[in-house]
Amino acid sequence: MNDQDYMKLAIDLAKATIGQTSPNPAVGAVVVNHGEIVGMGAHLKAGEAHAEVQALRMAGERAIGATIYVTLEPCSHFGKTPPCADLIIEKELKRVVVASNDPNPLVSGQGLERIRQAGIQVETGVLKEQADQLNKFFYHYMKKKLPFVTLKTASSIDGKTATVTGESQWITGEESRQDVHQLRHQHDSILVGVNTVITDNPSLTTRLPHGGKNPIRIILDTHLRTPEESQVIKDQAAPTWIMTGSQIDQEKKRRLIKQDQVTIYELPVDKIKIKDVLHLLGEKLVTSLLVEGGATIHESFIKEACFDELIMYFAPKIIGGEKAPSIFGGIGISKLSQAIHMNIESIERMGQDFKVTARPERR
Amino acid sequence: MNDQDYMKLAIDLAKATIGQTSPNPAVGAVVVNHGEIVGMGAHLKAGEAHAEVQALRMAGERAIGATIYVTLEPCSHFGKTPPCADLIIEKELKRVVVASNDPNPLVSGQGLERIRQAGIQVETGVLKEQADQLNKFFYHYMKKKLPFVTLKTASSIDGKTATVTGESQWITGEESRQDVHQLRHQHDSILVGVNTVITDNPSLTTRLPHGGKNPIRIILDTHLRTPEESQVIKDQAAPTWIMTGSQIDQEKKRRLIKQDQVTIYELPVDKIKIKDVLHLLGEKLVTSLLVEGGATIHESFIKEACFDELIMYFAPKIIGGEKAPSIFGGIGISKLSQAIHMNIESIERMGQDFKVTARPERR
Amino acid sequence: MNDQDYMKLAIDLAKATIGQTSPNPAVGAVVVNHGEIVGMGAHLKAGEAHAEVQALRMAGERAIGATIYVTLEPCSHFGKTPPCADLIIEKELKRVVVASNDPNPLVSGQGLERIRQAGIQVETGVLKEQADQLNKFFYHYMKKKLPFVTLKTASSIDGKTATVTGESQWITGEESRQDVHQLRHQHDSILVGVNTVITDNPSLTTRLPHGGKNPIRIILDTHLRTPEESQVIKDQAAPTWIMTGSQIDQEKKRRLIKQDQVTIYELPVDKIKIKDVLHLLGEKLVTSLLVEGGATIHESFIKEACFDELIMYFAPKIIGGEKAPSIFGGIGISKLSQAIHMNIESIERMGQDFKVTARPERR
Amino acid sequence: MNDQDYMKLAIDLAKATIGQTSPNPAVGAVVVNHGEIVGMGAHLKAGEAHAEVQALRMAGERAIGATIYVTLEPCSHFGKTPPCADLIIEKELKRVVVASNDPNPLVSGQGLERIRQAGIQVETGVLKEQADQLNKFFYHYMKKKLPFVTLKTASSIDGKTATVTGESQWITGEESRQDVHQLRHQHDSILVGVNTVITDNPSLTTRLPHGGKNPIRIILDTHLRTPEESQVIKDQAAPTWIMTGSQIDQEKKRRLIKQDQVTIYELPVDKIKIKDVLHLLGEKLVTSLLVEGGATIHESFIKEACFDELIMYFAPKIIGGEKAPSIFGGIGISKLSQAIHMNIESIERMGQDFKVTARPERR
Ligand SMILES: [Zn+2]
Ligand SMILES: [Zn+2]
Ligand SMILES: [Zn+2]
Ligand SMILES: [Zn+2]
Repeated sequence: MNDQDYMKLAIDLAKATIGQTSPNPAVGAVVVNHGEIVGMGAHLKAGEAHAEVQALRMAGERAIGATIYVTLEPCSHFGKTPPCADLIIEKELKRVVVASNDPNPLVSGQGLERIRQAGIQVETGVLKEQADQLNKFFYHYMKKKLPFVTLKTASSIDGKTATVTGESQWITGEESRQDVHQLRHQHDSILVGVNTVITDNPSLTTRLPHGGKNPIRIILDTHLRTPEESQVIKDQAAPTWIMTGSQIDQEKKRRLIKQDQVTIYELPVDKIKIKDVLHLLGEKLVTSLLVEGGATIHESFIKEACFDELIMYFAPKIIGGEKAPSIFGGIGISKLSQAIHMNIESIERMGQDFKVTARPERR
Repeated sequence: MNDQDYMKLAIDLAKATIGQTSPNPAVGAVVVNHGEIVGMGAHLKAGEAHAEVQALRMAGERAIGATIYVTLEPCSHFGKTPPCADLIIEKELKRVVVASNDPNPLVSGQGLERIRQAGIQVETGVLKEQADQLNKFFYHYMKKKLPFVTLKTASSIDGKTATVTGESQWITGEESRQDVHQLRHQHDSILVGVNTVITDNPSLTTRLPHGGKNPIRIILDTHLRTPEESQVIKDQAAPTWIMTGSQIDQEKKRRLIKQDQVTIYELPVDKIKIKDVLHLLGEKLVTSLLVEGGATIHESFIKEACFDELIMYFAPKIIGGEKAPSIFGGIGISKLSQAIHMNIESIERMGQDFKVTARPERR
Repeated sequence: MNDQDYMKLAIDLAKATIGQTSPNPAVGAVVVNHGEIVGMGAHLKAGEAHAEVQALRMAGERAIGATIYVTLEPCSHFGKTPPCADLIIEKELKRVVVASNDPNPLVSGQGLERIRQAGIQVETGVLKEQADQLNKFFYHYMKKKLPFVTLKTASSIDGKTATVTGESQWITGEESRQDVHQLRHQHDSILVGVNTVITDNPSLTTRLPHGGKNPIRIILDTHLRTPEESQVIKDQAAPTWIMTGSQIDQEKKRRLIKQDQVTIYELPVDKIKIKDVLHLLGEKLVTSLLVEGGATIHESFIKEACFDELIMYFAPKIIGGEKAPSIFGGIGISKLSQAIHMNIESIERMGQDFKVTARPERR
Repeated sequence: MNDQDYMKLAIDLAKATIGQTSPNPAVGAVVVNHGEIVGMGAHLKAGEAHAEVQALRMAGERAIGATIYVTLEPCSHFGKTPPCADLIIEKELKRVVVASNDPNPLVSGQGLERIRQAGIQVETGVLKEQADQLNKFFYHYMKKKLPFVTLKTASSIDGKTATVTGESQWITGEESRQDVHQLRHQHDSILVGVNTVITDNPSLTTRLPHGGKNPIRIILDTHLRTPEESQVIKDQAAPTWIMTGSQIDQEKKRRLIKQDQVTIYELPVDKIKIKDVLHLLGEKLVTSLLVEGGATIHESFIKEACFDELIMYFAPKIIGGEKAPSIFGGIGISKLSQAIHMNIESIERMGQDFKVTARPERR
């Protein structure tokens, strides 16, 4: 086992926690003394012990003179917990190996500097790329103070999301649907338009074999038309945040916010802009948003160029029909040169379906 | 080198000729004497020497006592050339190894039987599956007396074939377009609707770096609206067959058929059915048809369940727009249960684009 | 994440501890509650907390109602720690998923039975094969009460371990030598003949970039010829056990055993048999033995059919020479039918060298 | 199909003939006209038609204006056949695509120059590396005027070629033995020492499922001790060349050379040097030599540094024994620094055995 091997283990520990640590990043740590592992840990939930604390707790006395491998630079500021940099110094470690520096420019490098000044060896950049892959939401958020936006679509192979009569249930197969629930588990929040709530009355929760974290449910609802008996209001399974314009029935609002976990954000506008919603979510420490539609909602995100990743599920069916709804609605573009160019990151088989992951070419 | 190795070589020889032998199958042959290759050959063009003839010609005297590997059972009937079974007997070969029997039930096994009776050892089924892959058009045609129909589509990733204003040129990239020309080279014929001829005035020829075989151009044109100055009429690059209904301008017809390579087939109907076109093509020994659209034409093939393979090219662009044309037009289906279920055979990257090959689940 | 994914993580945790837990097996554990990981742990060292204890300690209150994934059946008997089965019941877990049952037939199934009777769901066999791979030494030892014996050889490509003049240093390259140190880290003990001690004066310790666990050093030394100033006597880096016959210089013995970590086992025989040594080691809870030679020692293990795996490093050099020493010495066999048949498990490139792992065909 | 695709087919055609064209190289050719293959050919045997002739014969009239793909530069000199360069000009081809230039420095580039001057386009270097792989013997011979020497060994995994009593039959398995026969088919000649002839009385012929070309049998026999009744003398299956020193029984020589296919080369020396044998073979147009042993013969080739490739078959057996014969015999080296350093080109499983191909590091 060399530095790479131990860091790989720390990354595996962190990887397992993706989706449950927000707004904190997923972090793993491994402590090694004389070629033996004496501690392993990961940050499990915001507000709880950092990865380093977990691993050093397990190491006990054997931390003295040991090397710690951490996927992210140890923190140097007092947050909900005392700084890990101080703990490392106090426990008399000999060497700290780190994959990535803290992406927050205000504090980046400070933890390592403090450690270095205590006479502890520091090495950085070990498996950096793999470690950064773990926290694409977190890095994006630290840089832009806006959530990472994933658009999710599901359609037939010819790009239809429903028949001409609007039948759309179960276009894609079981594997794709499981995969969507994994996306919900990984994202902090999920967004649909009020029409979807009225038509389908979805719960928008995560239904994996072993449960999973429910995302905050964001409803775009300019005129506060969300039915009071809808699941997102009544089921209390997760927070529901309704984004409205300024012209709403205040009486209905009062009734709704009496419901547990329901919050209404009145934006001082007639027509809600996606950008405003994203800024609000950023302020509320929401680092990631999964947009599940429908077509008009998707169109808005595309028109405002407000998305970072597009995940498309295609079922091997032909629906056809000029008037059957397509993946993206709206007026569309008139010249091909106005089309949004994407880079296809991956194409995966998913049972009978396939899944395409793409990112806009330049943001 | 064992039987498999030699047959693999015969298959490689045949594979290179796919697209140029129709209505005959692609066939390769290798002659081996005392562990040395003494002859190799392939059938290059209908009317010319069969693969066995080529290979035995090369072998000369060394054919005596040799083994011949052929991808398809040697013929036993007098066609444009004398039967290869007789040639094998006359040349005193010792052993015949065959991948597949003749798919024509009327003659299947007869060539091998004659060879066996002459005291020559016969072995069949060696690499049969690979050999049959070479000739999917031919086997389909032998079985159904109808051409193998390939639908080809090209769209943005969201299933749009043009913008709302109709701009559609160059949606897909260079690699995809090259691949389409390879398809044209491999198919006996290519079909478009008359509207495509009027709007785009395409040549429908094969433009590969080294040329390639041009398919017969089939125009679906109920009312004989094909412009007299269009490329498919004037360029004489390949046969052009216009399929019309019974109500056409006979004067225009007379002018058109004076053009070299132009033929008009008047079907005795008001509205042309795809099935009738396919039967006509089958009678004319056309073993394969590439349908290049547009959306209405594709819709017709789908509605009549008249296609055997669907090849879709997707460009990594978002076009969007409710009214922008989709891959398949028409009225479409009202219930999801009526959707055509496909099996996805393969997904390939093609430059920036990707290509999906699928087949209808049951025919 | 499904059962397999969580168990895979538990296996990764265990895998990192191979070599440091003996005579205990490597075990990993993961606790999951509502699709979130709430605890992770591994058994790090004999005498310390079991994997389940580590993982449940991290989980705290969130263990209630959770699922625990363990690579090995939880223990049910009081050892150095209270039984993990009781802890799981006490912490009110809901479900226990296990890869393998306890290999000790006396207690196998008892831990799970106790857990089941407490009304907790139990599932077994998840990724069993992968989990068992972790502990091949442990399973072998549990079954036979004898250490797992690995013979290690290093030679030129033509099977020579030295030149005719006996020069043998550094035949193999750096990567192979690192790999050997990994083997030392993983094995409980290492064995050489006294001639090797006299000639090379080796330390027989583990020298990995980050240290590593030193194996117990076993010297086969019938007549107690180990030099009093040799490294294995003086360096105190690890226990040194000298195996002698009954005819030894008792005065020298008294001097030697005054040295720290040196033990002498007098076997009541004139000529030491390998089988006797292995039985003694088994009694002393040594679960694995790495035999590093030389040729005569290897020959003894082969002649008595006392080895479980053969690991050979080949350097890409030709040494040649009739009289140059070969991998295995001794008298050898006279008939080919007496040769030991091996199964080759793997062949790996190792820098310029290659490594062959093989096992005797029937034991 | 592009240039690479067509050249790949030409290479496949050539590959199938490896071993049967010596002293000529294996060459393949493909003729393409308007994207259709109109001719394919390969050189089958020294003295027969060149690949270009075969392919152009098949093309007939369709050669005019076509492109020819040849794996080797067309010849420009009158040999047993008129120059292919002239034929290409005469047939009015439009373009010539070549993988490699002629390796003979005296004529290299001349064929292409003549073609170019006739106004035909020329392109070179297409898939050069793959094409050159076909003819490693030929290129070596053209450069050095000496045969390419392959040493072949077969041993147990511990480098023993026989038991102490000398039993050596069938150490390796069926797959390895088949592979050796493939080597015999590919090499022009095979060499053993007279002791092997006396002890084993081998036929040294190629026994593949479909026969194969027999190599010339070279016997190193300083004192002409080859038994008159041995197979290599009596079976007339292939030429047998006996290399002797100057002190031989002339009477026996006269009797032996009366045998069909037996030749005796008296070297004017007391002790035969390998270098002298190789020079003699080079003069006789032998481009490749397979050395099959025994140990003393191998030792001679190694000591004189007279080999280009080493192919070792290892059976998964342990033979052991200090006195059992090793792969290479002789006195050997005294210092490790004198060992011959090899580069391992490949390691392949071969049934239960494995095969290592290596080349000396610097020649
Ligand atoms: Zn911290
Ligand atoms: Zn025929
Ligand atoms: Zn326990
Ligand atoms: Zn030539």
